Amino acid sequence: MKHVAIGQSGGPTAVINATLAGFVRELYKDHAITFVVNGYEGLANQLFLEADDALISNVMESKKVPGAFLGAGRYEFDEEKIKESVQNLRRQKINTLVFIGGNGTMEALKRIEEEAKQQNYTLQVIGLPKTVDNDLAKTDHAPGFGSAAKYAALAARDMSRDLQAMSNFEQVRILETMGRNAGWLTAAAGFLNDYKQDGPHVISLPEDPLSPDVIMKKTTHALEEHGTALIIVSEGASWEKGQQVERDRVQGRSVLGGVSKEIENLIKQNMDVMVRSELLGMNQRSFSAAVSSTDFNEAVITGETGASWVREKKTGVMVSLQRADTALYHIDYVPVALHEVAASGERILPPSFIQNQKAYNEWLRPLVGSDVSSYPPPLKRRNLHVIEQNKSK
Amino acid sequence: MKHVAIGQSGGPTAVINATLAGFVRELYKDHAITFVVNGYEGLANQLFLEADDALISNVMESKKVPGAFLGAGRYEFDEEKIKESVQNLRRQKINTLVFIGGNGTMEALKRIEEEAKQQNYTLQVIGLPKTVDNDLAKTDHAPGFGSAAKYAALAARDMSRDLQAMSNFEQVRILETMGRNAGWLTAAAGFLNDYKQDGPHVISLPEDPLSPDVIMKKTTHALEEHGTALIIVSEGASWEKGQQVERDRVQGRSVLGGVSKEIENLIKQNMDVMVRSELLGMNQRSFSAAVSSTDFNEAVITGETGASWVREKKTGVMVSLQRADTALYHIDYVPVALHEVAASGERILPPSFIQNQKAYNEWLRPLVGSDVSSYPPPLKRRNLHVIEQNKSK
Repeated sequence: MKHVAIGQSGGPTAVINATLAGFVRELYKDHAITFVVNGYEGLANQLFLEADDALISNVMESKKVPGAFLGAGRYEFDEEKIKESVQNLRRQKINTLVFIGGNGTMEALKRIEEEAKQQNYTLQVIGLPKTVDNDLAKTDHAPGFGSAAKYAALAARDMSRDLQAMSNFEQVRILETMGRNAGWLTAAAGFLNDYKQDGPHVISLPEDPLSPDVIMKKTTHALEEHGTALIIVSEGASWEKGQQVERDRVQGRSVLGGVSKEIENLIKQNMDVMVRSELLGMNQRSFSAAVSSTDFNEAVITGETGASWVREKKTGVMVSLQRADTALYHIDYVPVALHEVAASGERILPPSFIQNQKAYNEWLRPLVGSDVSSYPPPLKRRNLHVIEQNKSK
Repeated sequence: MKHVAIGQSGGPTAVINATLAGFVRELYKDHAITFVVNGYEGLANQLFLEADDALISNVMESKKVPGAFLGAGRYEFDEEKIKESVQNLRRQKINTLVFIGGNGTMEALKRIEEEAKQQNYTLQVIGLPKTVDNDLAKTDHAPGFGSAAKYAALAARDMSRDLQAMSNFEQVRILETMGRNAGWLTAAAGFLNDYKQDGPHVISLPEDPLSPDVIMKKTTHALEEHGTALIIVSEGASWEKGQQVERDRVQGRSVLGGVSKEIENLIKQNMDVMVRSELLGMNQRSFSAAVSSTDFNEAVITGETGASWVREKKTGVMVSLQRADTALYHIDYVPVALHEVAASGERILPPSFIQNQKAYNEWLRPLVGSDVSSYPPPLKRRNLHVIEQNKSK
């Protein structure tokens, strides 16, 4: 009987536990399963939990719970720790290792696979993708992104209506999204841009340098046309000749955040308007009421596919989601080599989408699920005084 | 035929347009309706729009749209402007004035009613309640609060699971809620506290002074017990001997915000942990995917009730929501005098709820709607190393 270890790693998503539950449900009846707690830290330090009925039930019941049930997080995974990890797996007689994660996770899995070969230990290795940034290569997208995109799209559209209602008090709002070095999530905040009045009137991606002139020009134009301006900026955007804005640095890792505040200050210095910047924050990856049905379903199937590949003895691969070139949206779950994923690095938003929000929206539409609908138009807010002057003649 | 003017005022909510739609649907067929744009600013400056079929349709279709369709916002409404407003109403032959708003709105309506009497102008005046802060008196609660409470409850619970998953990188998270001087919304963030591990481990209300000692003690305890700590603080909370923290001051009005950052700094100075503070932000009052079904329905009925009172010639009253003392949740819509609402001022969270979260949760349960369910327990995160050491013997 195979002895399978499964862990979660990196930042959580709203559907990473759906992948875990899908995987476990397919295997637990005829496999020994060990849960690795706290990602690669657990692998290096043997934070192992053997699956029993209670734990299996808890995992299955948690499929709609955000976070990462087993613990994920960050860990500096050096050569020495990778060696120890393989020794730990050998000691526990674990011959299949499956991890749910993003770029860093796939890179680490590849190195574990190589180290196992060095140690002449036969280890099956499978990666299951997750990301809210959508910066994982060799896959159309990965579970977690659709829900984060839905959250960002709804938040931007809903807050724009809120802002318009407050236009006699507050005129400019800046929302900062996650996404690190890739603009996928930031651009998703423009998905529901059905009306020019709603905006977003500026979208600043990490792929393009931030220009004070462009921001001021577009903001001024929006204020003149509509009375309010909505600006979306990625946490990973940086000024021309500048660097990304860090809110913190932990364990040598940069925690991005704060560029929206810098834009707020820029506008305050140059215009007599009330401006407010806000981070969309951790809700982007955790808010359960904004989970995309497509994203949830794909997360489950990703786990189930990984389980079937355990049986089929596939190894050294990640489950990728390949979009069929058909009129109706369809995803095939296809193996890609871990070394190819790792070699590709972070996948940024391509120019074809940066230059064409409509093309991006078409690509994004199925991922946010079917329960997102358009709003009727907002009340036009410019020239109301003129209407009144006509009326009161 | 009556000529009815309706406006919206103050901060928007996710369901204020449901009240507007409910009101208009009941009256538009046999009443002339004028929409007042941008709240009391529109009344003073005659920002009036006569309802035509297109506008009525737009209002009806916007019933599930957040923000305030007509524009709301802030306005300094002095004696002179109130006089002008009544003159404007007389000029337009408007004999019924209905406004949807909170404390400030009801106070203003009362003054308009008094001014109309002064001017010997017969004016029917009705107030329809809305608030996310729930600080409106003489009503059990008001439309807008249930959805904001649901958002805060879900965000706190979901982000706690996210935090726990990141515990090897990030240990303390502080969420700042709206609420101004009343703790209703802040306490709602503790509604889904099914497990001690999830927290919130500290809830700081505006009704009680912030104590550095208490915060540090409770945070330390949570970290020792669970490895993470979730802190909820109201934007209106202030330090012992301190003042509320302002993020901005606009038109002489304080915009609260930033106390969570001060708590972040306090913890950083005293503990070696990664701590992150976040504002729940404008999403609390605008996020469409977290609207409470109860709240939406009550918002519609509030509007419909106001419409029926227009026909019944009630005046000088606000629609209040009175909870029946029955086993099953039931609301009666009862008139209360505007001058009583105005005289009562801001309603803060009573001590019986501050001292007893369970009692508060019972009160709150019907308001957040029926689609909020409990999570299964999280994985216990303390003593994992001990479990492992036992295993690896």
